[in-house]
Amino acid sequence: MEGASATVISVEELQLAARNHALPLEALAHSITPLGLHYLLIHFDIPLVDASAWKLAIGGLVERPLTLTLDDVTARPARTFAVTLECAGNGRALLSPRGASQPWLYEAVGTAEWTGTPLAPLLREAGVRSGATEVVFTGLDRGVQGDVEHLYERSLTLDDALRDEVLLAYAVNGQPLPPQHGYPLRLIVPGWYGMTHVKWLQSVTVVGEAFRGWQQEIGYRLQQSEDDAGTPVTRMLPRSLLVPPGIPDFFSRERFVPAGPCVLAGRAWSGWGRIERVEVSTDGGATWSDAECGDAVSPYGWNGWRFEWDAGPGEYELCCRATDAAGNTQPLEPEWNLGGYCNNAVHRVHVTVS
Amino acid sequence: MEGASATVISVEELQLAARNHALPLEALAHSITPLGLHYLLIHFDIPLVDASAWKLAIGGLVERPLTLTLDDVTARPARTFAVTLECAGNGRALLSPRGASQPWLYEAVGTAEWTGTPLAPLLREAGVRSGATEVVFTGLDRGVQGDVEHLYERSLTLDDALRDEVLLAYAVNGQPLPPQHGYPLRLIVPGWYGMTHVKWLQSVTVVGEAFRGWQQEIGYRLQQSEDDAGTPVTRMLPRSLLVPPGIPDFFSRERFVPAGPCVLAGRAWSGWGRIERVEVSTDGGATWSDAECGDAVSPYGWNGWRFEWDAGPGEYELCCRATDAAGNTQPLEPEWNLGGYCNNAVHRVHVTVS
Repeated sequence: MEGASATVISVEELQLAARNHALPLEALAHSITPLGLHYLLIHFDIPLVDASAWKLAIGGLVERPLTLTLDDVTARPARTFAVTLECAGNGRALLSPRGASQPWLYEAVGTAEWTGTPLAPLLREAGVRSGATEVVFTGLDRGVQGDVEHLYERSLTLDDALRDEVLLAYAVNGQPLPPQHGYPLRLIVPGWYGMTHVKWLQSVTVVGEAFRGWQQEIGYRLQQSEDDAGTPVTRMLPRSLLVPPGIPDFFSRERFVPAGPCVLAGRAWSGWGRIERVEVSTDGGATWSDAECGDAVSPYGWNGWRFEWDAGPGEYELCCRATDAAGNTQPLEPEWNLGGYCNNAVHRVHVTVS
Repeated sequence: MEGASATVISVEELQLAARNHALPLEALAHSITPLGLHYLLIHFDIPLVDASAWKLAIGGLVERPLTLTLDDVTARPARTFAVTLECAGNGRALLSPRGASQPWLYEAVGTAEWTGTPLAPLLREAGVRSGATEVVFTGLDRGVQGDVEHLYERSLTLDDALRDEVLLAYAVNGQPLPPQHGYPLRLIVPGWYGMTHVKWLQSVTVVGEAFRGWQQEIGYRLQQSEDDAGTPVTRMLPRSLLVPPGIPDFFSRERFVPAGPCVLAGRAWSGWGRIERVEVSTDGGATWSDAECGDAVSPYGWNGWRFEWDAGPGEYELCCRATDAAGNTQPLEPEWNLGGYCNNAVHRVHVTVS
């Protein structure tokens, strides 16, 4: 594990790693992540929800507050599209020092097909009143973080909340949401890091001032120190990952590859624009070659890529890096911040060819 | 985390914890574990299987070797039952020192409804020859463990393989197996620890001598030292787990419970007999009270249990312990062994009531 071999992990971090599931890297071979392999980050406990009693309240600065049952939501016009979701803390455990939180390595990502009803028509039906600036999304999950007891809540600006692709989703990969993905209803905001996609939604509240909840004002900010007000984490930076070739050692996850032609393949995504380029290095990032990019699985989902490597005997550090249409490229080394967010440094996989 | 607060985890262990998913303890509330919450332990990589090309070979010491397509398997008589599966390494990270392997805490368990065809009639059709003593189950997953490259393989004695409840399973919770659970076919051996339930089955081979593959002879043995031949890990020892009450702190997973009546609930199981008793302690195991046991979800699945606790303000260490019909009771402290297997010491959950 390049850059982290001397790291030790605390038991508190291990407890989080046990409950928050990562995508095993070989599952990048699936263009749509099978249920049960998609990453999960669950701050508090997964709520037990009785859908027959559940209701969604749409209120705040609106003319006509709405209360919707699950049947009301599923009876509305539906859209389905594949969306790549990545945790904002992906890569945190590769930083040193790192924030005391979920110790992700590379794999906190997944791409699923989400089905839901667009939010904007609902907000228009409710009638957003003048003075409205943000929309607050409140989940049913309650707990303590940073010594503050709160429900999980995040906001979007009114403009972002009204974007066409923002969904209230009740199905994933053609099935009702399983409990861990937000049953019965969650927010989907394509392009944004996972903290935005509030699960177990209970209310949508239009407000006229900046939302100051813990998960918005304290959590999910890029800060250089505790005193730094920082900037909010929003859209996903470009990232690419590769399917580790060959076979693994159980414990070290070192890889063994037979000499000869070897197709390297993986996925790449960005929340800032389409993927324009994926490059591969077999020498730890000293030299790079272009990979062949496939089509994205949707306007909001990742691209496949492949690279034909003629693997001669030896030791290699395979790397990949993506560049998006906005001109963002993955850095070779992590860019440190206090909370350990948005570490999109290139993926490195050590292999032995023989 | 009682007994482990000074422990540090290596990055290699963290890599395993990221890919091998645990059951979040609050999901014990579901009598049948939803897909995506069941524990996973995957030694090597999840194979990518083309089911249309896949075949199962049944051979070795048989009169009539069989080759079956997936359609052949699913056309045979089917049985469905709930089975509790637990990893043999569950609890390993609570041991000190511990084997270098997957660092499970308490949560490597799940109960799903498996559908498949019984193995015994297939072996009878193939015609087991005299001299046969064991049946070897071979998966498609290949890798290196203990410096030995091998396919994942395990054996059962012929008597165990012929038990009525042993299934070749192709569905879980009413759906085709997802890749991570062994698509397209896996072995299910109710009552045994998870290493027995070989996934991604490609062959079933009847043999006339003791199988000596790595996962049988080196792995999964209860040893006191490297020189100790040890004894094989087989059936699940009794264990009970409780749904942590109240709400959690995100990072520490400490629990906060309001004072007053509080129902404690959980699950208990054993591979050696039905659950006869579950006890609860609120003082770290000094004193115990009987919990009320519900029915098992199946002859091979866990029991629910509940206990009404009148929670006064203070700090508590909640514990639960199960006793099975064979007279096995969970110990208060772990029983150490080199590989870190079968640690069924009582579950301990620290809570603050206010």
